[in-house]
Amino acid sequence: MVVGELAYERDLLIIGGGPGGYNAAIRAAQLGKSVTLIEREQLGGVCLNKGCIPSKVFTHAADKLYSYQKNEQLGIECDTLTFNYSKLEKYKNKIVDQLRQGVEALCQSNQIELLMGNAFFLSENKIGVEKDEQYEIYQFKNAIIATGCSPKSNKLFSKLDSKKVLNHWSISTVREVPDRLIIYGSDYITLEMAMSFRAFGSTVSILLDDGKEEFPFDPAINRELERILKKKKIAIFKGVIKEVKEDGSAVMIDVVRKESVKTIIGSYLFVSNHYIPNTKELGLERIGIQIDQDGFIVTNEKCQTSVNHIYAVGDVTGGEQLAIKAIKEGKVASEAISGIPSEIDITNIPTIVRAVPPIASVGLTENEAIESGYEISTGQFSLNGNGFATLIDKKEGLIKVIIDKKSQLILGVHIIGEGAVELISTGIHALEMIAREEDLLFPLYPHPSINEGLLEAIEALSGLSIHTAQRKKSKEIAQF
Amino acid sequence: MVVGELAYERDLLIIGGGPGGYNAAIRAAQLGKSVTLIEREQLGGVCLNKGCIPSKVFTHAADKLYSYQKNEQLGIECDTLTFNYSKLEKYKNKIVDQLRQGVEALCQSNQIELLMGNAFFLSENKIGVEKDEQYEIYQFKNAIIATGCSPKSNKLFSKLDSKKVLNHWSISTVREVPDRLIIYGSDYITLEMAMSFRAFGSTVSILLDDGKEEFPFDPAINRELERILKKKKIAIFKGVIKEVKEDGSAVMIDVVRKESVKTIIGSYLFVSNHYIPNTKELGLERIGIQIDQDGFIVTNEKCQTSVNHIYAVGDVTGGEQLAIKAIKEGKVASEAISGIPSEIDITNIPTIVRAVPPIASVGLTENEAIESGYEISTGQFSLNGNGFATLIDKKEGLIKVIIDKKSQLILGVHIIGEGAVELISTGIHALEMIAREEDLLFPLYPHPSINEGLLEAIEALSGLSIHTAQRKKSKEIAQF
Repeated sequence: MVVGELAYERDLLIIGGGPGGYNAAIRAAQLGKSVTLIEREQLGGVCLNKGCIPSKVFTHAADKLYSYQKNEQLGIECDTLTFNYSKLEKYKNKIVDQLRQGVEALCQSNQIELLMGNAFFLSENKIGVEKDEQYEIYQFKNAIIATGCSPKSNKLFSKLDSKKVLNHWSISTVREVPDRLIIYGSDYITLEMAMSFRAFGSTVSILLDDGKEEFPFDPAINRELERILKKKKIAIFKGVIKEVKEDGSAVMIDVVRKESVKTIIGSYLFVSNHYIPNTKELGLERIGIQIDQDGFIVTNEKCQTSVNHIYAVGDVTGGEQLAIKAIKEGKVASEAISGIPSEIDITNIPTIVRAVPPIASVGLTENEAIESGYEISTGQFSLNGNGFATLIDKKEGLIKVIIDKKSQLILGVHIIGEGAVELISTGIHALEMIAREEDLLFPLYPHPSINEGLLEAIEALSGLSIHTAQRKKSKEIAQF
Repeated sequence: MVVGELAYERDLLIIGGGPGGYNAAIRAAQLGKSVTLIEREQLGGVCLNKGCIPSKVFTHAADKLYSYQKNEQLGIECDTLTFNYSKLEKYKNKIVDQLRQGVEALCQSNQIELLMGNAFFLSENKIGVEKDEQYEIYQFKNAIIATGCSPKSNKLFSKLDSKKVLNHWSISTVREVPDRLIIYGSDYITLEMAMSFRAFGSTVSILLDDGKEEFPFDPAINRELERILKKKKIAIFKGVIKEVKEDGSAVMIDVVRKESVKTIIGSYLFVSNHYIPNTKELGLERIGIQIDQDGFIVTNEKCQTSVNHIYAVGDVTGGEQLAIKAIKEGKVASEAISGIPSEIDITNIPTIVRAVPPIASVGLTENEAIESGYEISTGQFSLNGNGFATLIDKKEGLIKVIIDKKSQLILGVHIIGEGAVELISTGIHALEMIAREEDLLFPLYPHPSINEGLLEAIEALSGLSIHTAQRKKSKEIAQF
């Protein structure tokens, strides 16, 4: 197979074995392509090894910890309850290993060639792969770049001892539960980490990033979320950072808001923030692949780069840094390469937070809908009135639906509460199927279930939620 | 308001305050009707007081008990774990009271008049309501009958001491966890009770009712369910009852199958079985309301009886004895009475079992689809391959999708596994929206989530599930 100039010939080369890369690899193999996957660290990428999966193990444990006291009323009684953080870390590592081995086995069963090493473009159809002392050249028909991103250190905190400043990747290297944890951010990682470490015993303060005044969800979700955070004794700070300093082993952040200054003190600072694309060592400039001003690779709806036979998927292409996007793009790229007319459309990408309770949202928030020029109706239902939520004692949360008054089309579905993640797929499908209010009103909803909360939010659009107390009617109607 | 012959005048009278009746009452009040609700026992009916809600409290506790050992690996350690059944009973009673008070408060806030007593028809527009020594007559424009059903004692077990034979209503009167519990049935109550009492410490045997050879789900769900039951050490017996006897405090049932006889021994027998409509005392014959051969009230798609201005909803109308049907019919009846063109259509009624793990199913099973003449494709995905199920250590279960090969229309969605109940709404909506394979293939599914299992079941229809090992390919393709 070796050609003249010592280059191995390959059909499809994929650089990066994260969710984007490995989903692309398997899909291409399923469609009959001969696939080579190049990974420089570990299969599964950030998501599996350092991101979503570890974070979800933490929130899963946090959920169990929060519900322990509630189990007593069910007659499930425990003498002394202890929480062993290092055991949870071991479990996390076990799960990560297990899932990574699963990906390896899938690659093998799909006859995907796996190369370990650093890859970089030598020309439009040649890649060099370097590992230790070895160096080999591969010629390809198609390539997919799926190299992801890395956290960008935040200049605001550059003065601090770097061991005190944690990011999504390094937080799992801390061997103990921080005594006082400050979290800088407002995204899903912020909330997952805040609720997890609070459950593990940390005193947690969230400082919303970039001077934000709100979390990024629908206003109704934001209100309920802040209420829940306060109930969990997680402090929320809003304002602009005035000074960041260190005093002995403590990190101190002065925040100004409305002319008053507050000081947040922590033993560690977790920063959930910006990412930079992993493109530096790829040699993109050598082949003229177009990148945007932040260095992210520009792609079209087929995930093609400006060099037609080279595709790019996932975080390295910018936009939302979410595995869900990478997975879909990976499949689309491989399908496009295989001649299937697939296109990416992430209009209805859900936002998921595995907090306690979880948050799941799709479509427009109330503010976004109004800003987009819609005249809207909203329907909202508190899980406090839901029978199933009551019996499992998870009454926190609400479901809110936004429709366009004129067309009755569903514009957004927002859920905070038990079952939110599973239930949001109904909202996603409603949006994809261009559903109207009546399309969600007509079907049957299991009883008793959280699902009924979605129905009641829809019913609330026309004031017909059954389990919502009626506002006082006007005298006339009352005397009817 | 009292007329000549001492009859109070009312707009809409509803007999029975179960899910059908109280949903009808609130909906009618919302639509401007003046409503009188008559209940002879307790608001909330069987579902709330003796049925679904108590049963779901039990399965919720069972779920917690089953997962206790799993929490240890998360670092959540408990010295001695004890289960106090009487405390769970107290919790169950508390929840039932709380929900019932909720219904009362809703009736009040909707200005619904509540009458306690036995109601019976005197004529086509008069009802008598009797309570203790009191008796009053009400004249009405419309009435809704929502009187439900009662368990019918099974002749098979008539020889046994009645204290040993429990039904859905009486099981919660047993003050202790039965030592050995025999369960006769195959429906959702059978499974919920079996898994609950197994978790509480009973030795449990299920004897499928009426000589059935299978549970009533899709064959793939049945297989997985039997595997899970066996793993939980719940014995499953199939065959025909030869003899039922009692020996001291033990119930003994001899079952014959394939010429071999097995004896099942229990301290209690739970019979999940048939129901009879609560119509006897209603005086239906007096006004000529049509009933079927089993005594259930015959209704049309608007829930109207053969006497046009009288409607009937819920269990008393026959069909599936499920609150979900009663709730929907209650709303439809009140909407129809209020001049809204609502109709009942329960084609896509889901089957829900809050077992551990839960089962949720909608549309046709594989067998039903074939019997209906469809040429089908099926896609199936084991939760064993799902990342989120792996990390929460709930890998039991599967998702199966059935489509019509010709039209690609979704015919059925069947789930056993964590999140099944919340996720089935996606299946219900897909069926209601006449969705095709591509409609479930195209949208985004949260990552990591159980939802992705549904996507992979859809992908499996065309052999494109990512997390399923590929079967060995033919030599030709392998050498490509």
